[in-house]
Amino acid sequence: MAESGEGIGRIENGALAVRDGRFAFAGPEAELPAEFDGCESFDGAGRWATPGLVDCHTHLVYAGNRAREFEMRLAGASYEEVARAGGGIVSSVRGVREASEDDLVAESLPRLDALIAEGVTTIEVKSGYGLDTDSEMKSLRAAGRLAEARDVRVRRTFLGAHALPPEAKGDKTAYIARVCEEMLPAVAAAGLADAVDGFCEGIAFSPDEIAKVFDAARTHDLPVKLHAEQLSDLGGAALAASYGALSADHLEYLSETGAKAMAAAGTVAVLLPGAFYFIRETKLPPVDLLRRHGVPIALATDCNPGTSPLTSLLLTMNMAATFFRMTVDECLIAVTRNGAKALGLGEEIGTLEAGKSADFCLWDVEDPAELVYRIGFNPLHKRIRGGR
Amino acid sequence: MAESGEGIGRIENGALAVRDGRFAFAGPEAELPAEFDGCESFDGAGRWATPGLVDCHTHLVYAGNRAREFEMRLAGASYEEVARAGGGIVSSVRGVREASEDDLVAESLPRLDALIAEGVTTIEVKSGYGLDTDSEMKSLRAAGRLAEARDVRVRRTFLGAHALPPEAKGDKTAYIARVCEEMLPAVAAAGLADAVDGFCEGIAFSPDEIAKVFDAARTHDLPVKLHAEQLSDLGGAALAASYGALSADHLEYLSETGAKAMAAAGTVAVLLPGAFYFIRETKLPPVDLLRRHGVPIALATDCNPGTSPLTSLLLTMNMAATFFRMTVDECLIAVTRNGAKALGLGEEIGTLEAGKSADFCLWDVEDPAELVYRIGFNPLHKRIRGGR
Ligand SMILES: [Zn+2]
Ligand SMILES: [Zn+2]
Repeated sequence: MAESGEGIGRIENGALAVRDGRFAFAGPEAELPAEFDGCESFDGAGRWATPGLVDCHTHLVYAGNRAREFEMRLAGASYEEVARAGGGIVSSVRGVREASEDDLVAESLPRLDALIAEGVTTIEVKSGYGLDTDSEMKSLRAAGRLAEARDVRVRRTFLGAHALPPEAKGDKTAYIARVCEEMLPAVAAAGLADAVDGFCEGIAFSPDEIAKVFDAARTHDLPVKLHAEQLSDLGGAALAASYGALSADHLEYLSETGAKAMAAAGTVAVLLPGAFYFIRETKLPPVDLLRRHGVPIALATDCNPGTSPLTSLLLTMNMAATFFRMTVDECLIAVTRNGAKALGLGEEIGTLEAGKSADFCLWDVEDPAELVYRIGFNPLHKRIRGGR
Repeated sequence: MAESGEGIGRIENGALAVRDGRFAFAGPEAELPAEFDGCESFDGAGRWATPGLVDCHTHLVYAGNRAREFEMRLAGASYEEVARAGGGIVSSVRGVREASEDDLVAESLPRLDALIAEGVTTIEVKSGYGLDTDSEMKSLRAAGRLAEARDVRVRRTFLGAHALPPEAKGDKTAYIARVCEEMLPAVAAAGLADAVDGFCEGIAFSPDEIAKVFDAARTHDLPVKLHAEQLSDLGGAALAASYGALSADHLEYLSETGAKAMAAAGTVAVLLPGAFYFIRETKLPPVDLLRRHGVPIALATDCNPGTSPLTSLLLTMNMAATFFRMTVDECLIAVTRNGAKALGLGEEIGTLEAGKSADFCLWDVEDPAELVYRIGFNPLHKRIRGGR
């Protein structure tokens, strides 16, 4: 998956050498340096190895689920009827606020385990269902504890600007001020976030409001990301790029201006086919535009209870191929190298290269294309993180 | 799931009693007869129980896969280029012909295991990649051996009329004659099939040709099924119904006449959202029409290498809800009671009712709706077949 290689850089009869949790060599077995002769070794027996998978956009930590709402909608209930029955994002906010930190960890672990079972070694987890200082911090602490409960790397993103909480009674200006002046400083002081995210959309926050959040993030030296251009084009991607954002995510309605700004800033495009599928979106993200401008494309589950209750990164690749016509190589790079980039971890993980953390998977497939082609099948043989 | 119940017939605080591999009681725990006092018991601990799942339409037994073809298509290759590179159904025919019976069993077991891991207790397996007597019989024998290798009920369907083999050089009449006069009699004499199927489509066989196959099936007392109205309306469903078919499958282009004929004959409509998804079909099967005429709807994976490399019946339900707007109850009934009916096993499995085989699943969900709502998540706690 190295940047320098062609496509995914397939190497037949390859070898990986690991020392102190990092790759000391990755390449053709014939070129393995003699210094590794006699080391403890493991025969992959013809299996394919890939970097450990990276799920770079999730809302994994939540309480309760919205199966009942899903059921009502299928039975013909209107949005209002669902809301009256207590559905919608407010139900997730209520769930997180009422849950203890232990509850959040316990409810999130089965979802994390599903991802891990498919070879995920790094995930990002956003807050954004707490929407007050305590609840946001509780969510981020719970996310941190996932990395203690399981052998997985977790990156945490503060998403206070996800939605307006009910008690704000429609006052977005006052809520954004609280995000910037109270919530974000508290989160940053406690070291609970690696990045700051927002939801820039008609139904959420405007570019001006998001800019305030990004300014506050800058004050605390935190990189930013943005939910942008999912349902309309508000110029969120270009705004994010102007702050050097790690990523802009969703992007169904991305314009050429936005794509150019992302390319210039090195901002990764994170596409989320699970949400595209679940909300039955018909507007496709402009993959050709991203290709043309050389914007790196990542894929993620967007695991969340409202619009993407998805816990399979393999299926995410299949959906990106099927719906978005991304190629096999693009899909595989999107959940490894580019997923790492979207988290600011491009130097640490995402490829099989000497110096990087030895996070990798062995797969029972005859060709890596099978990882994208199969639907609802898990050919993982072994998942190794940090060389173990 | 009993026919008499409303929706899926939810019972809170239910009890199941099993004797000699069959349900002796199924209902509210408060009504459990005293005769079961003191029996060996197991506490479901608040989990939901459903009948064991039924995957009533698969082409599970094949050799090789078509990941390379999938990759080429995504990279922009035309149908002709794929064919020239050896892709398409002929590659699956070649694969099955070259494979030994042992190979076929070994290659199919991981797919079967994926289904079993999600609570499938009964699957149907079609031949149709052999297309000569020996290879069709080999496929069906391999399918039978799956039931020896794993604790699963397998129903076998002879699908000689799947496609025209290359050596037929376009002569459909001669090939259909061989199906009727040589292949089907041999399969029936060896007791290798529970039903006979065909593919009625412009790219496959005409209604007249299919009628010849159905006449032959009748001679051998075998019930019939049909791949019908997937890409166009040739009246296949009505034809199948006129032979009292167990099911007509796909049905995107089903007409009202076809739906009426199916209702009158008790023919089950088997919808296959995996294929709908994978080939990016836009024509939806007429679910409302089926509802209006009271045609029972089943769902299945259609697991096959060319158009539905899908091995998750849970995901199949989610796709049916998402794409086809089937309700949660419809989806759950579709993979249990109606799946059983589509195999002629309505008296034996598919519901939790006294007298039926004790095939059931316990799920770690708070509500059965979660089985349809989640994507790429397996909450199976325990799978019991024949009471064990
Ligand atoms: Zn999101
Ligand atoms: Zn089929």
